[in-house]
Amino acid sequence: MLLEELEELEELKLTCSKDLPDTVRLNGISFSRDNFIVMAGPCAVESYEVTYNIARNLRRFGVKIFRAGAYKPRTSPYSFQGLKEEGLEILKEIKKKSGLHIITEVMEISDIEKVCEAADILQIGSRNMQNFPLLREVGRLNFPVLLKRGAGSTIMELLGACEYIVKEGNEKVILCERGIRTFENLTRNTLDISAIPLLKSMTRLPVVVDPSHACGRSHLVPSLSLAAIAAGSDGLLIEVHSEPSGARSDPNQSLNLCDFEKLMDKLKILAKSLGKKI
Amino acid sequence: MLLEELEELEELKLTCSKDLPDTVRLNGISFSRDNFIVMAGPCAVESYEVTYNIARNLRRFGVKIFRAGAYKPRTSPYSFQGLKEEGLEILKEIKKKSGLHIITEVMEISDIEKVCEAADILQIGSRNMQNFPLLREVGRLNFPVLLKRGAGSTIMELLGACEYIVKEGNEKVILCERGIRTFENLTRNTLDISAIPLLKSMTRLPVVVDPSHACGRSHLVPSLSLAAIAAGSDGLLIEVHSEPSGARSDPNQSLNLCDFEKLMDKLKILAKSLGKKI
Amino acid sequence: MLLEELEELEELKLTCSKDLPDTVRLNGISFSRDNFIVMAGPCAVESYEVTYNIARNLRRFGVKIFRAGAYKPRTSPYSFQGLKEEGLEILKEIKKKSGLHIITEVMEISDIEKVCEAADILQIGSRNMQNFPLLREVGRLNFPVLLKRGAGSTIMELLGACEYIVKEGNEKVILCERGIRTFENLTRNTLDISAIPLLKSMTRLPVVVDPSHACGRSHLVPSLSLAAIAAGSDGLLIEVHSEPSGARSDPNQSLNLCDFEKLMDKLKILAKSLGKKI
Amino acid sequence: MLLEELEELEELKLTCSKDLPDTVRLNGISFSRDNFIVMAGPCAVESYEVTYNIARNLRRFGVKIFRAGAYKPRTSPYSFQGLKEEGLEILKEIKKKSGLHIITEVMEISDIEKVCEAADILQIGSRNMQNFPLLREVGRLNFPVLLKRGAGSTIMELLGACEYIVKEGNEKVILCERGIRTFENLTRNTLDISAIPLLKSMTRLPVVVDPSHACGRSHLVPSLSLAAIAAGSDGLLIEVHSEPSGARSDPNQSLNLCDFEKLMDKLKILAKSLGKKI
Repeated sequence: MLLEELEELEELKLTCSKDLPDTVRLNGISFSRDNFIVMAGPCAVESYEVTYNIARNLRRFGVKIFRAGAYKPRTSPYSFQGLKEEGLEILKEIKKKSGLHIITEVMEISDIEKVCEAADILQIGSRNMQNFPLLREVGRLNFPVLLKRGAGSTIMELLGACEYIVKEGNEKVILCERGIRTFENLTRNTLDISAIPLLKSMTRLPVVVDPSHACGRSHLVPSLSLAAIAAGSDGLLIEVHSEPSGARSDPNQSLNLCDFEKLMDKLKILAKSLGKKI
Repeated sequence: MLLEELEELEELKLTCSKDLPDTVRLNGISFSRDNFIVMAGPCAVESYEVTYNIARNLRRFGVKIFRAGAYKPRTSPYSFQGLKEEGLEILKEIKKKSGLHIITEVMEISDIEKVCEAADILQIGSRNMQNFPLLREVGRLNFPVLLKRGAGSTIMELLGACEYIVKEGNEKVILCERGIRTFENLTRNTLDISAIPLLKSMTRLPVVVDPSHACGRSHLVPSLSLAAIAAGSDGLLIEVHSEPSGARSDPNQSLNLCDFEKLMDKLKILAKSLGKKI
Repeated sequence: MLLEELEELEELKLTCSKDLPDTVRLNGISFSRDNFIVMAGPCAVESYEVTYNIARNLRRFGVKIFRAGAYKPRTSPYSFQGLKEEGLEILKEIKKKSGLHIITEVMEISDIEKVCEAADILQIGSRNMQNFPLLREVGRLNFPVLLKRGAGSTIMELLGACEYIVKEGNEKVILCERGIRTFENLTRNTLDISAIPLLKSMTRLPVVVDPSHACGRSHLVPSLSLAAIAAGSDGLLIEVHSEPSGARSDPNQSLNLCDFEKLMDKLKILAKSLGKKI
Repeated sequence: MLLEELEELEELKLTCSKDLPDTVRLNGISFSRDNFIVMAGPCAVESYEVTYNIARNLRRFGVKIFRAGAYKPRTSPYSFQGLKEEGLEILKEIKKKSGLHIITEVMEISDIEKVCEAADILQIGSRNMQNFPLLREVGRLNFPVLLKRGAGSTIMELLGACEYIVKEGNEKVILCERGIRTFENLTRNTLDISAIPLLKSMTRLPVVVDPSHACGRSHLVPSLSLAAIAAGSDGLLIEVHSEPSGARSDPNQSLNLCDFEKLMDKLKILAKSLGKKI
């Protein structure tokens, strides 16, 4: 990016950088500076039995928001694309049975309505961070939106994308750092941990971290999660599966239930010493 | 990107890597190994007078395809977003008057039909390279599509994206390298010149280069254009404006008419020595 | 980096990845899994008065190792290059007066002997990570060496560089992550926080973090420091100056004494909850 | 890199950016705007027989400068490190027998004298681009130096490094672009083709390209070579081996003699149409 482009962006008087409430509320859960919200679940919605079993266990460990994709954007059209409507039905059922809130991805304007029926938070994935028509459309809702940073996008571009939503009236935006593309190839992406304090200094919106996509290796996820809370993030979006090696996507980056439980224990200790509630 | 991801992609038997015709034809123009097609024009459609004046001159220099955006994806929602429908009407008028073919960007499924009425080639911009619903939809047309590589996307991902289009039946895809994100900051992006021979060795589709977005500086555009033809590309997508400093977007990267004319002369000399028709 | 290069490196049976003691000791200070060592001080040695004043205060805050460069590698030959021998004399004086240990950079084989007289730990800077003759030479010493990762170097390359030292017999190596080059330009580099758990899983050597060079902005340093300890690092190398705006190099990334004191308090709280001594 | 760093560098009044002669001469060979100099040879000096056989053939194809490393900087200390003094002796013998000029790498101050006895051009490798003591030392010679850009270094840093040489009085510097580190992993590095016109606009020094290290794949080398001459470079540094698969280093990126001969033919055609002598 050239100097002049950056300066141009810095001059933008972004609404998202100043006037927004720093709390995003949904039915009794608040993303705010005093809380630390762990969103966990499998990459994709799988069968009801498998998915519900994961959800039930996560609830037991203290998780309040369940993540799982019904629509999966994949590099190749021949990879598993998600259960789609069937996946949304499974999520509704899990929500009813478990009492967990649901976060799930929406990829297309024409799906927004049905995804909203199953979800408590809409996720805009990293590949769609600059899908401006989609951003504008979710901007017209009064519904929490988690906006993931694109793997090849700068922080200024993330704020620009956020502004597309906020400008339409929806101020319930949660920003998510999920790793950026670099030359390092022992990890899937490089978690830009600096993005947390930077975004916190440039906007009042909640900032969460997806350590699973950031590194792509489950054995690194706990360290990145602890780093995220210490650096000031307001929550996590983690992939957890009851049997990672059998997961229909991203098997290498999902924690198993046992390792996730251990991580939750460590997060609780750290949260306490940082003055945050988990 | 991790080793295992890459290997997985390499194992994909992509249709786009084997069976496609290596020529994309539109009303008498062929993108093929013997031709070199220069697509030129302003970043955005502006007033009819300004835009037509540019088109008229480009035609004079031997250009056969005119580029200009009616819909402009911009980092900030407060930047100029294009003239939209009004821009499409201007493009139709220019097409009629000048006899030039038109390439212009489509950002949204609901716009495809009206953009097709004005365009001879649909452009999918770099921000939408992995907008899979949009790719699938243009895949159902029998209409030439130019697919730009995302600035943060690998070559394997570009081929995966291409496959979303081809899988639906539309084989008229032109691939476009337009620079990738790197740490170098004297240029807007870094033109990945290796992408040309790599894509040529992995697929039979035409490969063109956008030197304007690649470097973001007009004084570098001629050198990159000459490099592109020498490296084996099948064409260029260049920004040209009658008065670059007054352009409504990307003023620093547009060639003026005079410098473009000089570049065309050099391209013709090089094309001849390389056995290509321009 | 190509697949085959990476595989080749992975096949290397690096000594540094297995057999080394996980503790580096110097006169009563141990870099080890139970400790967290904060090394702090100005970028460069300045006048005795200024430098000693910083050292004295840092000692008061609990710092045991003082950092300051007598030899400064700079991008331009016209920038301040350090006080050299005079700087080493000042460091010796400070060591004597304050009882602090000293870490300082060596850039050249012919300087090793005199730098060793002033230092307790030799620093190999990021620009010299692959200066193999220099690495071999410090490998022949029985003297602690802190090896910084190059800003454009992979983790495998850092391990390869480390092996040059270890192979010669010196096993007292401390690895230092200090940020890598990426496209993000709101920070000087991007701290690769994943490098900490990765290096910890691939070698038994101590791993520390330089948050100051990683981000280049003092207001981000505290968050990165807390992230580093949470992610499992064994220490920090931080730039602190009594009057950052007057520092002879890197004024934007130095903490002032007051902010550093606050950071130490937070680090102590976190260290305690993580079971580490500071 | 931060804005303020870049601005600081831009303000530097680099000698290398203005006052230098644009021609580097050695015994009848001139690097200049009218010539295109192809330097070719194996990655490393091997046995006299193998190496001389390659040299003899290259001479036949019109090459005037032979490249081969006696000292090889390698990521791992267990990889082949070059034949060292023995290699220099072989180079001297080849020079005498073939009449070819020699370019070879120097890694260490204490080797400069003996390398100068065998070489006509000293090569500073990419890992040593910021080895400032080495740069200063070759700056004190009156001897041509080819300075390679570091794989993780910006263009401004390359100019800063160049200035370390020029400042000491040696103005015979040839700059070499050899690919930079990016996220793309189908190639070893990404050739920054824009660096050619950029360096040409910022300095009067000759600029050459190393396409072999840039891509790491021999089948891409011809396209990159043609791109380099078209973009305005003054020469090439290419790896060629009589039996690439048996080369002691970099087997995947060396052209065989037959493919190199074909490339020379194409380069000659292009050079002619660009008004350059080869």
